[in-house]
Amino acid sequence: MTWLARVHVMLKPIVNDPQGEAILGALRSLQFGEVNQVRAGKYFEIQLDVPNRAAAERHADDMCRKLLANPVIEDYRIQIEDVSTPRDTV
Amino acid sequence: MTWLARVHVMLKPIVNDPQGEAILGALRSLQFGEVNQVRAGKYFEIQLDVPNRAAAERHADDMCRKLLANPVIEDYRIQIEDVSTPRDTV
Repeated sequence: MTWLARVHVMLKPIVNDPQGEAILGALRSLQFGEVNQVRAGKYFEIQLDVPNRAAAERHADDMCRKLLANPVIEDYRIQIEDVSTPRDTV
Repeated sequence: MTWLARVHVMLKPIVNDPQGEAILGALRSLQFGEVNQVRAGKYFEIQLDVPNRAAAERHADDMCRKLLANPVIEDYRIQIEDVSTPRDTV
């Protein structure tokens, strides 16, 4: 079966986010004065072939810890979706 | 009212994604052979003070077109959430 793992990686709330602050400054200079905070993060869509949802979750969590996120300063969250449609098997 | 706009920016499907391919290669070299595709994108959480949801959507869409996304090669999607909790008004 084919699964899609949607992975969000964000700096922990206590960690300063210079990219988000730069975007906030740029938005304000573009007259978006109503914006009061911006946090910038990374987003990955990962397709994987494993037999079940639990395995997909476990593998995606492994990938985050080993490569995609820096657990010292970043949090991540994973959503798993079944994408085993005929499209993928043709 | 305070709204949270969750913005995802991804390269259009027809556009080559070298960052995603590099991550795919790295995952395979870490023995994640079950992975068959990775797409890398950006994710922003933007807090804004506007009177209603429609205004929040319109402003977030403006921000994407003017700053956050390159509409020639990127798609974006916006989700709006009400975060007007007492925490924000204290």
